[in-house]
Amino acid sequence: MSHPGHTIHAHQHHIGWNNAIPPVMTVAPGSRIAIDCPDSSDGQLTAASSVTDVERLDFGRINPVVGPVFVDGAEPGDAIKVTIGEFQPSGFGWTANIPGFGLLADQFAEPALKLWSYDRAGMTPAAFSTIARVPLKPFAGTIGLAPAEPGLHSVVPPRRVGGNLDIRDLTTGTILYLPVEVAGGLFSIGDTHAAQGDGEVCGTAIESPMALEVTLDLVKGAGFATPRFTTPGPVTRHLDGAGYEATTGIGPDLMTAARDAVARMIDLLVRDHGMSAVDAYMLCSVCGDLRISEIVDLPNWVVSFYLPRLVFA
Amino acid sequence: MSHPGHTIHAHQHHIGWNNAIPPVMTVAPGSRIAIDCPDSSDGQLTAASSVTDVERLDFGRINPVVGPVFVDGAEPGDAIKVTIGEFQPSGFGWTANIPGFGLLADQFAEPALKLWSYDRAGMTPAAFSTIARVPLKPFAGTIGLAPAEPGLHSVVPPRRVGGNLDIRDLTTGTILYLPVEVAGGLFSIGDTHAAQGDGEVCGTAIESPMALEVTLDLVKGAGFATPRFTTPGPVTRHLDGAGYEATTGIGPDLMTAARDAVARMIDLLVRDHGMSAVDAYMLCSVCGDLRISEIVDLPNWVVSFYLPRLVFA
Repeated sequence: MSHPGHTIHAHQHHIGWNNAIPPVMTVAPGSRIAIDCPDSSDGQLTAASSVTDVERLDFGRINPVVGPVFVDGAEPGDAIKVTIGEFQPSGFGWTANIPGFGLLADQFAEPALKLWSYDRAGMTPAAFSTIARVPLKPFAGTIGLAPAEPGLHSVVPPRRVGGNLDIRDLTTGTILYLPVEVAGGLFSIGDTHAAQGDGEVCGTAIESPMALEVTLDLVKGAGFATPRFTTPGPVTRHLDGAGYEATTGIGPDLMTAARDAVARMIDLLVRDHGMSAVDAYMLCSVCGDLRISEIVDLPNWVVSFYLPRLVFA
Repeated sequence: MSHPGHTIHAHQHHIGWNNAIPPVMTVAPGSRIAIDCPDSSDGQLTAASSVTDVERLDFGRINPVVGPVFVDGAEPGDAIKVTIGEFQPSGFGWTANIPGFGLLADQFAEPALKLWSYDRAGMTPAAFSTIARVPLKPFAGTIGLAPAEPGLHSVVPPRRVGGNLDIRDLTTGTILYLPVEVAGGLFSIGDTHAAQGDGEVCGTAIESPMALEVTLDLVKGAGFATPRFTTPGPVTRHLDGAGYEATTGIGPDLMTAARDAVARMIDLLVRDHGMSAVDAYMLCSVCGDLRISEIVDLPNWVVSFYLPRLVFA
């Protein structure tokens, strides 16, 4: 594969979204760009870290994104078409329970840290820790454009221009369309994950620094209200081979049902696999999926949490 | 395969849950039962129906369930272990937009009806209509036990004892555990679907009468708070081969985000596939999936709607 025409290095990052941040480069539509992404802690957590480093995290440095890139000709109402290329995972990852953050933050008040190392060479690349073997599916958790509204906006919440979407299928081959709100779009990317389930329930994935490539193109007058994406093939075959254990939450509030479903899966993992509750919670985050099974049988909805059985094989 | 020891016919059904309904049979744990399920309209909609029959539906006959079956020795605190066996689809199905029912009921006020016929013989069984070809995955939408609370309870909402769960993976080979609240459990089943996506967003699936088999077993003292299930293998390989188109809803309320994601998919189907909006809505219901992509990036969550591209192949 040829080398892309453009390269952005990890230090060329910013914290938060602000359409006044000057672009690191301007590219023509169709340009391929190599980007070196720091992890979401910006290197504060490493293979030598312990849980005390989670307590000491400087949140002012959390979730740096590399960019912004000005795409020639992009105007409000257009969409930036992002074709996601290959990832070069670094071999190291971490998952943490960060107090105050996560779906069950009220139940998991203490910090926790799990370190992962990759098996990148085999036919079925996976990350290992003391609790499980999780198949890899590297993707970028944060991909977005600058919002029209002036000023600095937190990097944490995603918006209609994208951002911290944490959609685990934004991986190699996927095409993502982001609505443009400012001239040039001002594209940035970061928060690379080696693996994550739908929901990212504990608040972190297998966080991992990675190099990646994207091709940025332009769809004039797309008029999309929110991001949309196309995957070229199956999205779960790397982990669905042994089926799933699934738990449910049932009731009139989707958030409560989601919390119940995850809490029941933690119960199952503690009881059937002898895992600590916080390890179970972190495992759910990196490979389990929150699905809305039904949203129409008034007044009770069903949210299911699916954990792939393969991780224990 | 040997014939199961027990058979229950379609007329042995009830409407709603009530622990005072006398059992149609008592079985020992481990018993295999053949059950003939009417469709959720109880035969009010047929291959000869038109949309006027949707307007004339008698809701007093909606969603009959066959049973109840008393499982010897089942007591509150136990679980009924339901091993779901083979289905014998009937070859006919329907999908309707029923006014007042469904995720986007405010946007789709008019009744609509789509009839499906099966291709059961080929290697890739699928249901055909004028809008798409949808791979079959027959399952029972309603599987449950009688609740402890006396009196008659609507069949529409699911509860901790199960009921109208509409979980599309409750199919052949899946093992479902239902919490017991009354002696014998009082198991009933119905609402068979030829195919459905996660969410059942328009309120109906490919509704279809079917024969099926279940094996009922008992787990003493299981202590489950809500239903859980185990799938023996992959759950989406019949439809994920060509990947997905996905749309997103982003914001602080999961219900609003789910509605936005589905509305955006309807926009996509209307624009890119020349489909009417109500046809698109019904297609979403029978094969598209609502997933919670992230539920931790305060204050905005991402709900994604995945539509398999295979249905247009």
